[in-house]
Amino acid sequence: MRIPKHVGIIPDGNRRWAQNKGMTKDKGYENGLDPGIEAYRACRDMGVEEVTFYGFTTDNTKRPSIQTKAFTDACIKAAHILNDEGASLLVIGNTKSPMFPKELLPFTNRTKGKDGQIKANILVNYGWHWDLNTLADAQNVNKNNIQNHIQSFDISRLDLIIRWGGRRRLSGFLPVQSIYADFYILDEYWPDFNKNHVLEAFKWYNTQDVTLGG
Amino acid sequence: MRIPKHVGIIPDGNRRWAQNKGMTKDKGYENGLDPGIEAYRACRDMGVEEVTFYGFTTDNTKRPSIQTKAFTDACIKAAHILNDEGASLLVIGNTKSPMFPKELLPFTNRTKGKDGQIKANILVNYGWHWDLNTLADAQNVNKNNIQNHIQSFDISRLDLIIRWGGRRRLSGFLPVQSIYADFYILDEYWPDFNKNHVLEAFKWYNTQDVTLGG
Repeated sequence: MRIPKHVGIIPDGNRRWAQNKGMTKDKGYENGLDPGIEAYRACRDMGVEEVTFYGFTTDNTKRPSIQTKAFTDACIKAAHILNDEGASLLVIGNTKSPMFPKELLPFTNRTKGKDGQIKANILVNYGWHWDLNTLADAQNVNKNNIQNHIQSFDISRLDLIIRWGGRRRLSGFLPVQSIYADFYILDEYWPDFNKNHVLEAFKWYNTQDVTLGG
Repeated sequence: MRIPKHVGIIPDGNRRWAQNKGMTKDKGYENGLDPGIEAYRACRDMGVEEVTFYGFTTDNTKRPSIQTKAFTDACIKAAHILNDEGASLLVIGNTKSPMFPKELLPFTNRTKGKDGQIKANILVNYGWHWDLNTLADAQNVNKNNIQNHIQSFDISRLDLIIRWGGRRRLSGFLPVQSIYADFYILDEYWPDFNKNHVLEAFKWYNTQDVTLGG
């Protein structure tokens, strides 16, 4: 089976999941932590080299504070869980804003990772405009090196993006790296994650051609 | 029904359609012309304000010359058909490359369009890197004005992208304008276009929420 090198994870549906269970929206995020490490392990065990999780965006921080606190806490915990697992971890986002949690500053330079582990990236207080803005300050940009000049330069081109929660859109997720990525959408909410979702996405990906626009 | 203001059309599957009919791949493109004007009219009649067609990319021009000639000719014809219809037409792409057809230079400034018609854009010899590259020369770029500084500044944010031919990816289609767009994929090949495909996509779009990342 042809395995994607880099998988993007859009873990959507936490709030809808919580509401369906009769809980307040903010309760969904904590139930997304186990899915995160399970998804990382499933990808790693299948031979994926890099996984990027969509944590939260600068847009998301306009939500009620009980929710922003909940998803920020979940990102902090997720980073520590992935670090404990031994992933080569990178947290990337706008660190200059007060919405970026200080607890994650140590992970804004990629950690080395343990043998047998893979790269894991979490977008935290990320914004697509923030990501592209450095292009405007760059010198000698040409068609072959745009990616070197964006903020997320250390995140490679995505092969497959899996989104939970049924929405069929990118919502600002790494626009440059997503250019040629195949999208796989699952209707299940992220807290209802099952390892088989990843396998299902990989089986579908295996049936797709790769042209990179050619 | 909530109607998208701006619809992106990725008219894929021309070559597979031709091969299925026992023709050579290059024969598919001419059969994509009628679908183009039908799609424009369907959108216009539903109240859409702007339609963007993915013509061909700088990546596509690496294909065999019999194919590049065929899709270039189809784009030239499509532009004239839309212009005759009275659309407010804009052809956008890298005009400095020899692959950009001279016949389309008159449409690289938007035409006025007739009363009752809408904006129609065709990407011709377009490249996502070409589109973003001007950011590097821009002054005073900030999170709210990135779109003003890209080559395709005159193309608005996309609400809905409809792709024919079953592939679930953007393939470099307007990365900035696609940030929040909903994707609707049809398995049918573009030459098998039917107006009902557009209606089906609009019905689905009507069931989606619009958060713009919030």
